[in-house]
Amino acid sequence: MPEYKIQYFNVKALAEPLRFLLSYKNIPFEDVRIKSEDWPAIKNTMPMGQMPILEVDGKRAHQSLAMTRYLAKQVGLVGSNDWEDLEIDMAVDTINDFRMKIGAVQYEPDEEVQKKKRVTLDNETIPFYLEKLEAMAADGHFALGKLTWADLYFVAVLDYLNYMAKKDLTENRPNLNKVKETVLALDGIKNWVAKRPQTDL
Amino acid sequence: MPEYKIQYFNVKALAEPLRFLLSYKNIPFEDVRIKSEDWPAIKNTMPMGQMPILEVDGKRAHQSLAMTRYLAKQVGLVGSNDWEDLEIDMAVDTINDFRMKIGAVQYEPDEEVQKKKRVTLDNETIPFYLEKLEAMAADGHFALGKLTWADLYFVAVLDYLNYMAKKDLTENRPNLNKVKETVLALDGIKNWVAKRPQTDL
Repeated sequence: MPEYKIQYFNVKALAEPLRFLLSYKNIPFEDVRIKSEDWPAIKNTMPMGQMPILEVDGKRAHQSLAMTRYLAKQVGLVGSNDWEDLEIDMAVDTINDFRMKIGAVQYEPDEEVQKKKRVTLDNETIPFYLEKLEAMAADGHFALGKLTWADLYFVAVLDYLNYMAKKDLTENRPNLNKVKETVLALDGIKNWVAKRPQTDL
Repeated sequence: MPEYKIQYFNVKALAEPLRFLLSYKNIPFEDVRIKSEDWPAIKNTMPMGQMPILEVDGKRAHQSLAMTRYLAKQVGLVGSNDWEDLEIDMAVDTINDFRMKIGAVQYEPDEEVQKKKRVTLDNETIPFYLEKLEAMAADGHFALGKLTWADLYFVAVLDYLNYMAKKDLTENRPNLNKVKETVLALDGIKNWVAKRPQTDL
Protein backbone atom coordinates (compact mmCIF):
# COMPACT_ATOMS: atom_id res chain seq x y z
CA MET A 1 0.00 0.00 0.00
CA PRO A 2 1.33 3.49 -0.83
CA GLU A 3 2.39 5.80 2.00
CA TYR A 4 0.04 8.75 2.26
CA LYS A 5 0.83 12.03 3.95
CA ILE A 6 -1.53 15.02 4.18
CA GLN A 7 -0.22 18.47 5.14
CA TYR A 8 -2.62 21.21 6.16
CA PHE A 9 -3.50 23.52 9.00
CA ASN A 10 -5.13 22.16 12.18
CA VAL A 11 -8.60 22.38 10.66
CA LYS A 12 -10.97 20.20 8.67
CA ALA A 13 -11.84 22.54 5.75
CA LEU A 14 -10.21 21.53 2.45
CA ALA A 15 -8.14 18.62 3.76
CA GLU A 16 -11.05 16.82 5.39
CA PRO A 17 -12.30 15.25 2.12
CA LEU A 18 -8.85 13.67 1.71
CA ARG A 19 -8.91 12.42 5.30
CA PHE A 20 -12.47 11.09 4.82
CA LEU A 21 -11.62 9.17 1.65
CA LEU A 22 -8.59 7.43 3.14
CA SER A 23 -10.47 6.74 6.38
CA TYR A 24 -13.38 5.27 4.42
CA LYS A 25 -11.14 2.33 3.52
CA ASN A 26 -9.19 2.45 6.79
CA ILE A 27 -6.05 3.41 4.88
CA PRO A 28 -3.44 4.83 7.27
CA PHE A 29 -2.02 8.29 6.55
CA GLU A 30 0.30 10.78 8.18
CA ASP A 31 -1.85 13.72 9.24
CA VAL A 32 0.57 16.64 9.48
CA ARG A 33 -0.98 19.80 10.93
CA ILE A 34 1.07 22.95 10.46
CA LYS A 35 0.81 25.57 13.21
CA SER A 36 -0.17 29.04 11.99
CA GLU A 37 3.06 30.49 13.40
CA ASP A 38 5.14 28.01 11.38
CA TRP A 39 3.29 28.66 8.12
CA PRO A 40 5.10 31.82 6.89
CA ALA A 41 8.44 29.98 6.94
CA ILE A 42 7.20 27.09 4.78
CA LYS A 43 4.57 28.82 2.61
CA ASN A 44 7.06 29.45 -0.19
CA THR A 45 8.07 25.79 -0.30
CA MET A 46 4.51 24.84 -1.35
CA PRO A 47 3.74 24.56 -5.09
CA MET A 48 1.25 27.46 -5.08
CA GLY A 49 1.99 28.82 -1.62
CA GLN A 50 -1.06 26.92 -0.41
CA MET A 51 -2.19 23.80 1.41
CA PRO A 52 -3.50 21.10 1.54
CA ILE A 53 -0.71 19.01 0.10
CA LEU A 54 -0.94 15.27 -0.48
CA GLU A 55 2.14 13.09 -0.69
CA VAL A 56 1.90 9.59 -2.14
CA ASP A 57 5.13 7.64 -1.65
CA GLY A 58 6.95 10.97 -1.47
CA LYS A 59 5.42 12.37 -4.67
CA ARG A 60 3.76 15.66 -3.91
CA ALA A 61 0.40 16.91 -5.18
CA HIS A 62 -1.68 20.04 -4.57
CA GLN A 63 -5.13 21.35 -5.60
CA SER A 64 -7.70 19.99 -3.17
CA LEU A 65 -10.38 18.84 -5.62
CA ALA A 66 -7.85 17.19 -7.93
CA MET A 67 -6.36 15.29 -4.99
CA THR A 68 -9.80 14.34 -3.70
CA ARG A 69 -10.76 12.94 -7.11
CA TYR A 70 -7.50 10.96 -7.18
CA LEU A 71 -8.14 9.39 -3.79
CA ALA A 72 -11.76 8.68 -4.73
CA LYS A 73 -10.42 6.52 -7.57
CA GLN A 74 -8.10 4.69 -5.17
CA VAL A 75 -10.96 3.80 -2.81
CA GLY A 76 -13.54 3.00 -5.48
CA LEU A 77 -16.02 5.82 -4.91
CA VAL A 78 -16.13 6.87 -8.57
CA GLY A 79 -18.48 6.05 -11.45
CA SER A 80 -18.30 3.03 -13.74
CA ASN A 81 -17.96 5.04 -16.96
CA ASP A 82 -17.04 8.54 -18.18
CA TRP A 83 -20.61 9.86 -18.07
CA GLU A 84 -21.07 8.67 -14.48
CA ASP A 85 -17.83 10.39 -13.51
CA LEU A 86 -19.14 13.54 -15.17
CA GLU A 87 -22.28 13.33 -13.06
CA ILE A 88 -20.19 13.06 -9.89
CA ASP A 89 -17.93 15.93 -11.00
CA MET A 90 -21.00 18.09 -11.69
CA ALA A 91 -22.23 17.56 -8.13
CA VAL A 92 -18.79 18.14 -6.61
CA ASP A 93 -18.20 21.31 -8.63
CA THR A 94 -21.61 22.65 -7.62
CA ILE A 95 -20.82 22.04 -3.94
CA ASN A 96 -17.44 23.66 -4.52
CA ASP A 97 -19.03 26.71 -6.21
CA PHE A 98 -21.20 27.06 -3.11
CA ARG A 99 -18.10 26.82 -0.91
CA MET A 100 -16.33 29.51 -2.92
CA LYS A 101 -19.30 31.87 -2.86
CA ILE A 102 -19.49 31.60 0.92
CA GLY A 103 -15.70 31.91 1.14
CA ALA A 104 -15.64 35.06 -1.00
CA VAL A 105 -17.72 36.76 1.70
CA GLN A 106 -15.97 35.21 4.69
CA TYR A 107 -12.53 36.21 3.38
CA GLU A 108 -13.47 39.68 2.06
CA PRO A 109 -10.88 41.89 3.79
CA ASP A 110 -12.88 45.15 3.70
CA GLU A 111 -15.36 45.06 6.59
CA GLU A 112 -17.95 47.34 5.00
CA VAL A 113 -17.86 45.44 1.70
CA GLN A 114 -18.13 42.17 3.60
CA LYS A 115 -21.23 43.35 5.46
CA LYS A 116 -22.99 44.22 2.21
CA LYS A 117 -21.97 40.97 0.55
CA ARG A 118 -23.16 38.91 3.48
CA VAL A 119 -26.68 40.29 3.03
CA THR A 120 -26.76 39.06 -0.59
CA LEU A 121 -25.20 35.78 0.50
CA ASP A 122 -27.84 35.20 3.19
CA ASN A 123 -30.84 36.34 1.18
CA GLU A 124 -30.02 35.05 -2.27
CA THR A 125 -26.98 32.83 -2.71
CA ILE A 126 -27.43 30.45 0.21
CA PRO A 127 -31.17 29.83 -0.34
CA PHE A 128 -30.57 29.32 -4.09
CA TYR A 129 -27.79 26.78 -3.60
CA LEU A 130 -29.48 24.97 -0.73
CA GLU A 131 -32.62 24.48 -2.80
CA LYS A 132 -30.58 23.12 -5.71
CA LEU A 133 -28.43 20.87 -3.52
CA GLU A 134 -31.48 19.57 -1.63
CA ALA A 135 -33.09 18.67 -4.98
CA MET A 136 -29.89 17.01 -6.23
CA ALA A 137 -29.84 14.83 -3.10
CA ALA A 138 -33.49 13.76 -3.50
CA ASP A 139 -32.64 10.06 -3.16
CA GLY A 140 -30.15 10.58 -0.35
CA HIS A 141 -27.12 10.80 -2.64
CA PHE A 142 -25.68 13.57 -4.80
CA ALA A 143 -25.00 11.41 -7.86
CA LEU A 144 -25.85 8.05 -9.43
CA GLY A 145 -28.34 7.17 -6.69
CA LYS A 146 -25.56 5.62 -4.65
CA LEU A 147 -22.62 6.47 -2.43
CA THR A 148 -19.92 8.37 -4.36
CA TRP A 149 -17.14 10.74 -3.42
CA ALA A 150 -19.59 13.64 -3.95
CA ASP A 151 -21.39 12.55 -0.76
CA LEU A 152 -18.16 12.25 1.22
CA TYR A 153 -16.93 15.57 -0.15
CA PHE A 154 -20.08 17.40 0.97
CA VAL A 155 -20.13 15.97 4.48
CA ALA A 156 -16.38 16.47 4.90
CA VAL A 157 -16.57 20.21 4.11
CA LEU A 158 -19.95 20.83 5.80
CA ASP A 159 -18.53 22.02 9.15
CA TYR A 160 -16.33 24.47 7.23
CA LEU A 161 -19.30 25.73 5.20
CA ASN A 162 -21.40 26.12 8.34
CA TYR A 163 -18.59 27.99 10.05
CA MET A 164 -18.18 30.44 7.18
CA ALA A 165 -21.93 30.84 6.62
CA LYS A 166 -22.45 31.30 10.38
CA LYS A 167 -25.45 28.97 10.32
CA ASP A 168 -26.50 25.32 10.15
CA LEU A 169 -26.95 24.94 6.40
CA THR A 170 -28.63 21.53 6.56
CA GLU A 171 -31.32 22.61 9.04
CA ASN A 172 -34.72 21.66 7.62
CA ARG A 173 -33.12 20.05 4.59
CA PRO A 174 -34.05 16.37 5.00
CA ASN A 175 -32.21 15.16 1.87
CA LEU A 176 -28.97 16.87 2.80
CA ASN A 177 -29.33 15.50 6.31
CA LYS A 178 -29.83 12.04 4.87
CA VAL A 179 -26.52 12.34 2.98
CA LYS A 180 -24.86 13.49 6.19
CA GLU A 181 -26.28 10.60 8.25
CA THR A 182 -25.33 8.03 5.62
CA VAL A 183 -21.73 9.21 5.37
CA LEU A 184 -21.24 9.62 9.12
CA ALA A 185 -22.60 6.09 9.66
CA LEU A 186 -19.90 4.49 7.48
CA ASP A 187 -17.53 2.49 9.71
CA GLY A 188 -14.32 4.10 8.49
CA ILE A 189 -15.74 7.61 8.73
CA LYS A 190 -17.25 6.96 12.15
CA ASN A 191 -13.85 5.82 13.44
CA TRP A 192 -12.11 8.84 11.95
CA VAL A 193 -14.61 11.36 13.30
CA ALA A 194 -14.31 9.81 16.76
CA LYS A 195 -10.53 10.09 16.83
CA ARG A 196 -9.77 13.23 14.78
CA PRO A 197 -8.59 16.42 16.52
CA GLN A 198 -11.57 18.54 17.54
CA THR A 199 -11.61 21.82 15.61
CA ASP A 200 -14.31 24.37 14.80
CA LEU A 201 -13.84 24.44 11.06
CA MET B 1 -20.74 8.92 -32.98
CA PRO B 2 -22.76 10.73 -30.26
CA GLU B 3 -24.54 13.96 -31.13
CA TYR B 4 -22.97 16.88 -29.32
CA LYS B 5 -24.63 20.20 -28.64
CA ILE B 6 -23.06 23.14 -26.80
CA GLN B 7 -25.20 26.00 -25.51
CA TYR B 8 -23.58 29.26 -24.42
CA PHE B 9 -23.50 32.96 -25.15
CA ASN B 10 -21.87 34.27 -28.33
CA VAL B 11 -18.43 34.30 -26.72
CA LYS B 12 -15.46 32.00 -26.32
CA ALA B 13 -14.92 32.14 -22.53
CA LEU B 14 -16.01 28.95 -20.70
CA ALA B 15 -17.44 27.11 -23.70
CA GLU B 16 -14.33 27.43 -25.85
CA PRO B 17 -12.50 24.52 -24.16
CA LEU B 18 -15.45 22.29 -25.10
CA ARG B 19 -15.39 23.57 -28.68
CA PHE B 20 -11.60 23.11 -28.84
CA LEU B 21 -11.72 19.51 -27.62
CA LEU B 22 -14.37 18.43 -30.12
CA SER B 23 -12.64 20.35 -32.91
CA TYR B 24 -9.32 18.70 -32.05
CA LYS B 25 -10.75 15.43 -33.36
CA ASN B 26 -12.94 17.10 -35.99
CA ILE B 27 -16.04 15.90 -34.17
CA PRO B 28 -19.09 17.85 -35.36
CA PHE B 29 -21.22 19.66 -32.77
CA GLU B 30 -24.16 22.00 -32.70
CA ASP B 31 -22.85 25.36 -31.52
CA VAL B 32 -25.90 27.15 -30.11
CA ARG B 33 -25.24 30.78 -29.15
CA ILE B 34 -27.93 32.38 -27.01
CA LYS B 35 -28.50 36.10 -27.52
CA SER B 36 -28.26 38.18 -24.33
CA GLU B 37 -31.83 39.42 -24.82
CA ASP B 38 -33.12 35.81 -24.92
CA TRP B 39 -31.21 34.70 -21.81
CA PRO B 40 -33.58 35.91 -19.05
CA ALA B 41 -36.39 33.77 -20.50
CA ILE B 42 -34.34 30.55 -20.49
CA LYS B 43 -32.01 31.11 -17.51
CA ASN B 44 -34.34 29.28 -15.14
CA THR B 45 -34.46 26.23 -17.40
CA MET B 46 -30.72 25.68 -16.88
CA PRO B 47 -29.58 23.34 -14.08
CA MET B 48 -27.85 26.09 -12.07
CA GLY B 49 -29.17 29.10 -14.01
CA GLN B 50 -25.87 29.12 -15.87
CA MET B 51 -24.20 28.14 -19.13
CA PRO B 52 -22.32 26.52 -20.81
CA ILE B 53 -24.44 23.41 -21.19
CA LEU B 54 -23.30 20.31 -23.04
CA GLU B 55 -25.77 17.82 -24.48
CA VAL B 56 -24.60 14.36 -25.50
CA ASP B 57 -27.32 12.45 -27.36
CA GLY B 58 -29.86 14.63 -25.59
CA LYS B 59 -28.44 14.04 -22.09
CA ARG B 60 -27.66 17.39 -20.51
CA ALA B 61 -24.58 18.31 -18.46
CA HIS B 62 -23.35 21.51 -16.84
CA GLN B 63 -20.23 22.66 -14.93
CA SER B 64 -17.63 23.73 -17.45
CA LEU B 65 -14.57 21.97 -16.04
CA ALA B 66 -16.44 18.72 -15.47
CA MET B 67 -17.68 18.77 -19.07
CA THR B 68 -14.23 19.65 -20.38
CA ARG B 69 -12.70 16.71 -18.51
CA TYR B 70 -15.40 14.42 -19.94
CA LEU B 71 -14.69 15.51 -23.51
CA ALA B 72 -10.93 15.22 -22.92
CA LYS B 73 -11.50 11.53 -22.15
CA GLN B 74 -13.53 11.10 -25.36
CA VAL B 75 -10.74 12.56 -27.51
CA GLY B 76 -7.83 10.89 -25.71
CA LEU B 77 -6.14 13.95 -24.20
CA VAL B 78 -5.96 12.48 -20.70
CA GLY B 79 -3.25 10.63 -18.76
CA SER B 80 -2.56 6.92 -18.84
CA ASN B 81 -3.08 6.36 -15.11
CA ASP B 82 -4.68 8.01 -12.07
CA TRP B 83 -1.53 9.89 -11.06
CA GLU B 84 -1.11 11.33 -14.56
CA ASP B 85 -4.73 12.48 -14.52
CA LEU B 86 -4.06 14.10 -11.15
CA GLU B 87 -1.13 16.01 -12.68
CA ILE B 88 -3.36 17.27 -15.50
CA ASP B 89 -6.12 18.20 -13.02
CA MET B 90 -3.57 20.10 -10.90
CA ALA B 91 -2.56 22.20 -13.92
CA VAL B 92 -6.15 22.79 -15.03
CA ASP B 93 -7.29 23.76 -11.53
CA THR B 94 -4.37 26.19 -11.21
CA ILE B 95 -5.29 27.84 -14.53
CA ASN B 96 -8.90 27.91 -13.34
CA ASP B 97 -7.91 29.51 -10.01
CA PHE B 98 -6.15 32.20 -12.03
CA ARG B 99 -9.28 32.67 -14.16
CA MET B 100 -11.45 33.04 -11.06
CA LYS B 101 -9.11 35.53 -9.42
CA ILE B 102 -9.18 37.72 -12.51
CA GLY B 103 -12.95 37.22 -12.82
CA ALA B 104 -13.56 38.23 -9.20
CA VAL B 105 -12.15 41.65 -10.07
CA GLN B 106 -13.74 41.95 -13.51
CA TYR B 107 -17.20 41.08 -12.14
CA GLU B 108 -16.98 43.09 -8.89
CA PRO B 109 -20.15 45.21 -9.09
CA ASP B 110 -18.93 48.07 -6.85
CA GLU B 111 -16.75 50.36 -8.96
CA GLU B 112 -14.64 51.68 -6.08
CA VAL B 113 -14.02 48.22 -4.70
CA GLN B 114 -13.15 47.00 -8.17
CA LYS B 115 -10.58 49.74 -8.65
CA LYS B 116 -8.80 48.79 -5.42
CA LYS B 117 -8.91 45.09 -6.22
CA ARG B 118 -7.52 45.63 -9.70
CA VAL B 119 -4.38 47.19 -8.20
CA THR B 120 -3.73 44.06 -6.13
CA LEU B 121 -4.58 41.89 -9.13
CA ASP B 122 -2.10 43.73 -11.38
CA ASN B 123 0.71 44.06 -8.86
CA GLU B 124 0.48 40.76 -7.02
CA THR B 125 -1.91 38.13 -8.30
CA ILE B 126 -1.18 38.24 -12.02
CA PRO B 127 2.64 38.29 -11.69
CA PHE B 128 2.49 35.46 -9.11
CA TYR B 129 0.33 33.22 -11.29
CA LEU B 130 2.16 34.01 -14.52
CA GLU B 131 5.49 33.09 -12.95
CA LYS B 132 4.05 29.79 -11.69
CA LEU B 133 2.31 28.97 -14.97
CA GLU B 134 5.40 29.88 -16.99
CA ALA B 135 7.46 27.50 -14.82
CA MET B 136 4.84 24.75 -15.12
CA ALA B 137 5.05 25.02 -18.92
CA ALA B 138 8.86 24.82 -18.96
CA ASP B 139 8.86 22.06 -21.59
CA GLY B 140 6.09 23.62 -23.66
CA HIS B 141 3.30 21.66 -21.98
CA PHE B 142 1.44 22.05 -18.71
CA ALA B 143 1.52 18.39 -17.70
CA LEU B 144 3.26 15.09 -18.49
CA GLY B 145 5.66 16.72 -20.96
CA LYS B 146 3.14 16.16 -23.76
CA LEU B 147 -0.09 17.51 -25.19
CA THR B 148 -2.98 17.10 -22.74
CA TRP B 149 -6.31 18.83 -22.21
CA ALA B 150 -4.55 21.24 -19.82
CA ASP B 151 -2.82 22.81 -22.84
CA LEU B 152 -6.05 23.06 -24.84
CA TYR B 153 -7.89 24.43 -21.81
CA PHE B 154 -5.35 27.21 -21.30
CA VAL B 155 -5.25 28.33 -24.92
CA ALA B 156 -9.05 28.12 -25.25
CA VAL B 157 -9.66 30.47 -22.30
CA LEU B 158 -6.67 32.75 -22.96
CA ASP B 159 -8.59 35.40 -24.95
CA TYR B 160 -11.12 35.53 -22.13
CA LEU B 161 -8.37 35.90 -19.53
CA ASN B 162 -6.67 38.65 -21.55
CA TYR B 163 -9.99 40.45 -21.96
CA MET B 164 -10.70 40.41 -18.22
CA ALA B 165 -7.11 41.23 -17.24
CA LYS B 166 -7.01 44.04 -19.85
CA LYS B 167 -3.56 42.92 -21.00
CA ASP B 168 -1.71 40.33 -23.04
CA LEU B 169 -0.88 37.82 -20.32
CA THR B 170 1.53 35.75 -22.41
CA GLU B 171 3.68 38.72 -23.45
CA ASN B 172 7.32 37.92 -22.68
CA ARG B 173 6.40 34.47 -21.42
CA PRO B 174 8.09 32.16 -23.95
CA ASN B 175 6.86 28.90 -22.41
CA LEU B 176 3.24 30.00 -22.34
CA ASN B 177 3.62 31.24 -25.91
CA LYS B 178 5.03 27.85 -26.87
CA VAL B 179 1.90 26.16 -25.49
CA LYS B 180 -0.23 28.62 -27.42
CA GLU B 181 1.62 28.06 -30.69
CA THR B 182 1.52 24.28 -30.31
CA VAL B 183 -2.22 24.17 -29.68
CA LEU B 184 -3.10 26.69 -32.39
CA ALA B 185 -1.01 24.70 -34.89
CA LEU B 186 -3.08 21.52 -34.39
CA ASP B 187 -5.08 20.86 -37.57
CA GLY B 188 -8.47 20.56 -35.91
CA ILE B 189 -7.93 23.66 -33.79
CA LYS B 190 -6.59 25.66 -36.74
CA ASN B 191 -9.73 24.82 -38.72
CA TRP B 192 -12.00 25.73 -35.82
CA VAL B 193 -10.26 29.05 -35.11
CA ALA B 194 -10.49 29.98 -38.80
CA LYS B 195 -14.23 29.36 -38.99
CA ARG B 196 -15.52 30.26 -35.51
CA PRO B 197 -17.54 33.45 -34.98
CA GLN B 198 -15.22 36.37 -34.23
CA THR B 199 -15.78 37.64 -30.68
CA ASP B 200 -13.67 39.68 -28.25
CA LEU B 201 -13.87 37.30 -25.34
